[in-house]
Amino acid sequence: MPELAYVNGNIMPIQDATIPIEDRGYQFGDAVYEYITSFNKRPFLLDEHLARLKRSMTELSFPLVDMDTIRSAVLEIFDKGGYDNGDVYIQISRGVAPRDHAFPESNEIQFIMTVRETKRYSDEMHANGIKVITVEDQRWGRCDIKTVQLLYNALAKQKALDSGAYDAVFVGPDNVVREGTSSNLFIIVDQTLITHPLTPNILPGITRACLLQICRERSIPFQERFFDTNELYAADEAFLSGTTTEVLPLIEIDGHPIGQGGIGAISKKLLAALRNKM
Amino acid sequence: MPELAYVNGNIMPIQDATIPIEDRGYQFGDAVYEYITSFNKRPFLLDEHLARLKRSMTELSFPLVDMDTIRSAVLEIFDKGGYDNGDVYIQISRGVAPRDHAFPESNEIQFIMTVRETKRYSDEMHANGIKVITVEDQRWGRCDIKTVQLLYNALAKQKALDSGAYDAVFVGPDNVVREGTSSNLFIIVDQTLITHPLTPNILPGITRACLLQICRERSIPFQERFFDTNELYAADEAFLSGTTTEVLPLIEIDGHPIGQGGIGAISKKLLAALRNKM
Repeated sequence: MPELAYVNGNIMPIQDATIPIEDRGYQFGDAVYEYITSFNKRPFLLDEHLARLKRSMTELSFPLVDMDTIRSAVLEIFDKGGYDNGDVYIQISRGVAPRDHAFPESNEIQFIMTVRETKRYSDEMHANGIKVITVEDQRWGRCDIKTVQLLYNALAKQKALDSGAYDAVFVGPDNVVREGTSSNLFIIVDQTLITHPLTPNILPGITRACLLQICRERSIPFQERFFDTNELYAADEAFLSGTTTEVLPLIEIDGHPIGQGGIGAISKKLLAALRNKM
Repeated sequence: MPELAYVNGNIMPIQDATIPIEDRGYQFGDAVYEYITSFNKRPFLLDEHLARLKRSMTELSFPLVDMDTIRSAVLEIFDKGGYDNGDVYIQISRGVAPRDHAFPESNEIQFIMTVRETKRYSDEMHANGIKVITVEDQRWGRCDIKTVQLLYNALAKQKALDSGAYDAVFVGPDNVVREGTSSNLFIIVDQTLITHPLTPNILPGITRACLLQICRERSIPFQERFFDTNELYAADEAFLSGTTTEVLPLIEIDGHPIGQGGIGAISKKLLAALRNKM
């Protein structure tokens, strides 16, 4: 079965899917995206992803888009893909126009998607955890909007791989720890979950919100507050969270071992609770 | 005559030119660009643009590219375009691969260009100048690399237009004035040209370098140093510089009038000297 793409209403094999070279997503990074995964043919937290997609477009003053049309198209490509567990990537750009920084007159967005079989982390990675490095956060100032301004994320991820780690964690001024290259970050100190508060410097992660909801439901104490690299290195547990990341334990950060090696007790409980919601 | 595009060796009308949706330039902004203009069929400062393009690719660890091939293709599309005065836009991305932050194994870059008749500013704009506003610089940390991480530039340009100005100027911490949304910035104080030094926060403009060379040749004093908004508002003259911008005078910044209205004496001399080199 070929992997499928959707381009402005048409579905085709991914390798046949193209966009005009003057798409503003290509020449200005003027595009937003979402990544949605399904379990047993049911898209997980679809409404939350669509709400964030709408917010991203609103924040950037995109042309108005009918979200029901988007929703139907997402369900259609999940269906046509036919995977029990599938990943749908959605990208919407401000449209196509001769290159000019100013917004074009046209109100025609470009709307593309791909669907593939879910690319999950192995049980082994979830059990054993990964190593990460920290890198200075040099991304732009609106990382709360899910745009394709991702070059620095890609550079940081590659730097991590080149150094023998698996991913990188962004650190802002005063060594404040922000998030991963495609995930949010949590630490656990004295049985309490701690994560960076929602500011323009981090993505309002849907899995992040889901985990905080789990904490509320199960009376697990949590704090949304700033913490620095010293607190990170000394944490009892640490993990990355995200749609495909789920709860991915960190066992080493900049060479500092975290916890006892492998997934910690609270992280394990949260991963199980998250999967229980799927 | 149709406006032409070049895509990986093939030339076609722009509206027929497409790239795969999984081009990393589209999904990660993982692409660099140049903009070259010709006068009387002669590309201006071609070697300098190609050198900067090569530097951009090197800084981002792009696959190695034969610059002679790039050069020949640029000359070919200028020629096929047939304009006496033409603008060639070049964009090179890291290539096409299933979406993943890490660099792909493949060493195949994507190389696209467009050619159009030159879009110059009118004599009136050069004579009368423009109004600009300042905006906080929220771009990423490597603005010295000419990438398509340009969403914030586009937002700032649109904000300027919406507020009745023509362009925006980025201001960093401590109110240090950096550059325009697609140009460098100079001020003139007591007959001396002042411009932001080359750091990761500004583009190493080719017109900027050409103007400093003119200063050397003509013994016009200049300083590459930081200056803040107070010094900007109080400047005797101010202008933006760039490939299509040339020397574009600023007559009002955040509502503060600059100079006597219209192009100042030194700016006028520099514009004439720049055009003399074309």
